[in-house]
Order: sequence, then structure tokens, then C-alpha cells
Amino acid sequence: MRKVTFGVANSLDNFIARADDAVDWLAWTDEIAAISAEFWKTIDTVVMGRKTYEVALKHGTSSYPGAKNYVFSFTLKAAPDPNVEIVSEEAAAFIRELKTREGKGICVMGGGELAKALFEADLIDEVGLNIHPVLLGAGIPLFFAMSRQIDLELLECKVLKNGCVYVLYRVKH
Amino acid sequence: MRKVTFGVANSLDNFIARADDAVDWLAWTDEIAAISAEFWKTIDTVVMGRKTYEVALKHGTSSYPGAKNYVFSFTLKAAPDPNVEIVSEEAAAFIRELKTREGKGICVMGGGELAKALFEADLIDEVGLNIHPVLLGAGIPLFFAMSRQIDLELLECKVLKNGCVYVLYRVKH
Repeated sequence: MRKVTFGVANSLDNFIARADDAVDWLAWTDEIAAISAEFWKTIDTVVMGRKTYEVALKHGTSSYPGAKNYVFSFTLKAAPDPNVEIVSEEAAAFIRELKTREGKGICVMGGGELAKALFEADLIDEVGLNIHPVLLGAGIPLFFAMSRQIDLELLECKVLKNGCVYVLYRVKH
Repeated sequence: MRKVTFGVANSLDNFIARADDAVDWLAWTDEIAAISAEFWKTIDTVVMGRKTYEVALKHGTSSYPGAKNYVFSFTLKAAPDPNVEIVSEEAAAFIRELKTREGKGICVMGGGELAKALFEADLIDEVGLNIHPVLLGAGIPLFFAMSRQIDLELLECKVLKNGCVYVLYRVKH
């Protein structure tokens, strides 16, 4: 069964972007690049919601190269980027099936709305956060209210030179 | 100038209690007791909002012993506990003055509503969180929307045996 990881950079008050989607407060250092590069070796698929996809487009990224990109949307038409597939079905059912196919890990990108649905359906196996040393005060939330509690086991915690705290948790199914 | 610390135990999704105020998910271990005991040596004053005070009462605690307890409320009458003083004035102004008096550190307990007002008034000097390995999914929030960004410097990060991550930040004034 393929592993599904929700991996995000966040502020200490759990925002993933400012209210206008800006991520100017995010650090990108050699250490973060190294953690990211190691992680990318373990996955071959990226899934995201429509909003995250549109923010990525706004920032000039139409897909994550080297991975199959699935975007969940009932309204978007087919994407011009051949690396992107628009999925107009319920995310949890799609990913439940995707996990059973041959392949490497699956990364849930960005928004908490997709993650919420996948947490509730018990489809997320790991959560990796790079907690930045800032309280943004407002913005796009990392987590949304969920119908149930998710118990976690800390697998890794690494303090980065710039004051970020990288934590990796396993979801207790 | 006395140091003001916002010190709380939280879930990874930044709740400090369940929606019904329950804190059954909080761990209390020798390590947490030791960190807490060291911290208590540095403070002599606890401040809290009315809601946190009422939750403490519900849990059978009328005050934190060994410290002067101030509760901010415009509606509560004087507390029966001589260790508790009800303050019916604006919290930021009161604490701005309190910081200039002789004494040890001041701890902001519990609720994010008081912390929000004090962060916005730039009166909090340190933030200490004991991040528990759980997503509660719903509950009483640790942080409320703020009118400005608060930049932090990581001072300490300690992984506890039970999977809690204790982080201490200095607020960059």
C-alpha cells in the first residue's frame, strides 16, 4: 500500500500562506532543500485541491515536475500541462484506489480542505510540517475542523539553523 | 522590565482544550513536570482571561498557588480566593504597567483571546508551547486572528519521550 504524506510549511499559528496567498515569509535554505530532495525521492505522485493548484499557477508553477499531478476539481476543464490530470470525482475514493496501485509515495500538497477530507477518511499516513518561527496572525489555514481526532506518533524532529522546526509524524490508524 | 511568557500545552492543530473544555488528551510526565517546575521558579505572577479562570474553577483549581493571580473580567465580582485579583480594566494597559513593577516573570495562561490582545500590544516576550502529538480536530483555539505579524526566534526545542515537542520562542520586538 502506497504511503500518503501531508507535507507543508507552516507558521507557528498554522497558516500556510497569507490571506492574499503570499508566501514571502517562507524560508528556503540548503537544509530545507536537502530534506525536500530526500522526500521527493520517495514519492512519484502529488495530489492537491483546486485552490492550491490555482495558487501554484499564480506563482508560475503549472505542475510539480517528476511526479504525476492530480488536481481535484468539479469545475476545472482539462489542464494544458500533460503532467496534470484534473480529477472530477470525490478525493477520498480516488485516493483510496490510488493507494492500492503500484507506485511510490503520494504527497498531499497545500490546502487543509483536501487534507481534512483525507484525514477524516483515514487515508493520510504521515504528516510533515516545517514550522516557521512566525505568527502570521491571519491567512490560509493549515488545518480545518475535523469530525474526529487523529492520534499521531512523532517520528522525527529537527531544528534547522534558521529556527524552523521540522517535525514528521506517523498517523495511528 | 519583567518578562511576559505565553505558556501553553497544545495539540498540533493548535487547540488548548476540546470544545467542552476537556483536557484529557494532555500528557503529564516527569519531563513535563521538570520543565514546568523550572519555569515556575522564574515567575511570580499569573494572568488569565475570565474564560480560562472559569475553566480552571470547573477543574477544581481556584488559583495557581505560589503566584499572584490576576483575572481580567468586567463582569466577575471579587474572587473568594485571596490569591486571585479580578482586574476590571483593559488587559494590555494593566500588564504594561505590571511589567514595570519589581518582580519575577509573568505568565499568560490559557486562552488565545487574552494572548491576542497582548501580542497586538507587543507585551509578550516569550512563547512556550508543548505540542502534543494529536490533531484534536475541534476545540478551544490557541491563537486568534491578529492585526499584525509577530516574528519569533527559536530559543529551545526539546523532544520529550512521549512524543511531545516543547518549543520556546523569543518575540522579536
